Amino acid sequence: MKQDTRQKLIETGARIIHRNGYNNTGIQEILRAADVPKGSFYFYFQSKEDFGLHIIDYFDNVYMQMIGPVISDSKVSPLKRIENVLDFFIGFFAELNFTCGCPIGNLSQEMADLSDEFGKRLEKSIELITGVYLNLLSEAKKTGEIDNDIDISDAAEFILSSWHGALIKMKVCKNTRPLQQHKQFVMKLLSP
Amino acid sequence: MKQDTRQKLIETGARIIHRNGYNNTGIQEILRAADVPKGSFYFYFQSKEDFGLHIIDYFDNVYMQMIGPVISDSKVSPLKRIENVLDFFIGFFAELNFTCGCPIGNLSQEMADLSDEFGKRLEKSIELITGVYLNLLSEAKKTGEIDNDIDISDAAEFILSSWHGALIKMKVCKNTRPLQQHKQFVMKLLSP
Repeated sequence: MKQDTRQKLIETGARIIHRNGYNNTGIQEILRAADVPKGSFYFYFQSKEDFGLHIIDYFDNVYMQMIGPVISDSKVSPLKRIENVLDFFIGFFAELNFTCGCPIGNLSQEMADLSDEFGKRLEKSIELITGVYLNLLSEAKKTGEIDNDIDISDAAEFILSSWHGALIKMKVCKNTRPLQQHKQFVMKLLSP
Repeated sequence: MKQDTRQKLIETGARIIHRNGYNNTGIQEILRAADVPKGSFYFYFQSKEDFGLHIIDYFDNVYMQMIGPVISDSKVSPLKRIENVLDFFIGFFAELNFTCGCPIGNLSQEMADLSDEFGKRLEKSIELITGVYLNLLSEAKKTGEIDNDIDISDAAEFILSSWHGALIKMKVCKNTRPLQQHKQFVMKLLSP
């Protein structure tokens, strides 16, 4: 029961913060939306920052669950799996009506300058996602699917950071064009 | 005198919002930092949103002033001028200790889902900056400096949006590596 309430607060907070931002979301708003009594927040979390850090764990887990089947689909070549990850999220954000963006990118932009704790935690999340691309690029390099001169560490970091930027543009222009452009240029960069 | 106070509020607000975010910055904080009496804010601005929109005008003007000499330096080839714009801002953000990022990118991420007014205004800013790259790419295409198959509209949009993403990563890792990677990959993409 205790775990249920805690989890409900995390899931509800994650949803609201993903949409509205961390500093724009109050604890009372989360408690109200989760239908949890006022005052019980500090029973589960030390502070709003502590809550925010747990929400990042939650986002990491959701991300890995979402893309797990796509990145482990061994019937598909590694480069095509990278393209499939991008296509998966293009579809995901079309369903979200081009809103929200990547919660890790958003929190990085919003919080990295304001809290060292957040900054360090978000760096780990970014490393986690970068690692997904790096593994696929490493496999793709072995099979000769990508340009042999490409530094795959740099490329993995660039794929993720340029994706975060494409999501910012998507939120403004309210279509998937920036995400399509991202995929197109990333594929052009990687091609032998 | 009236114009001085108004301008002081805009410049002070722009500085604080650039660093701390729009939703994380209160009107009282801006008035205090600008040493302007409480209560006079609504003499100059209809609302915080109205103030925010004027701040975007201010950011646009500062941006164009900053890069004006770089983009109009006719002694330098158009492609090299694109590289010089990127180098200019790499130096700029090194001096800011890898903080803040692009105010237009930040506000887009933070506000585009929350306010149509902001979203529309930010889209214009993004078009303004994209236009800077588009003009240089158009010149570079004429002189054969870039790959003739590149769609320069797509490329101009991608250069800016991937830059915004590189700035997010910079804020987290606190060095210019993401900006250097951005420049490196953009130049690789454009090269014939």
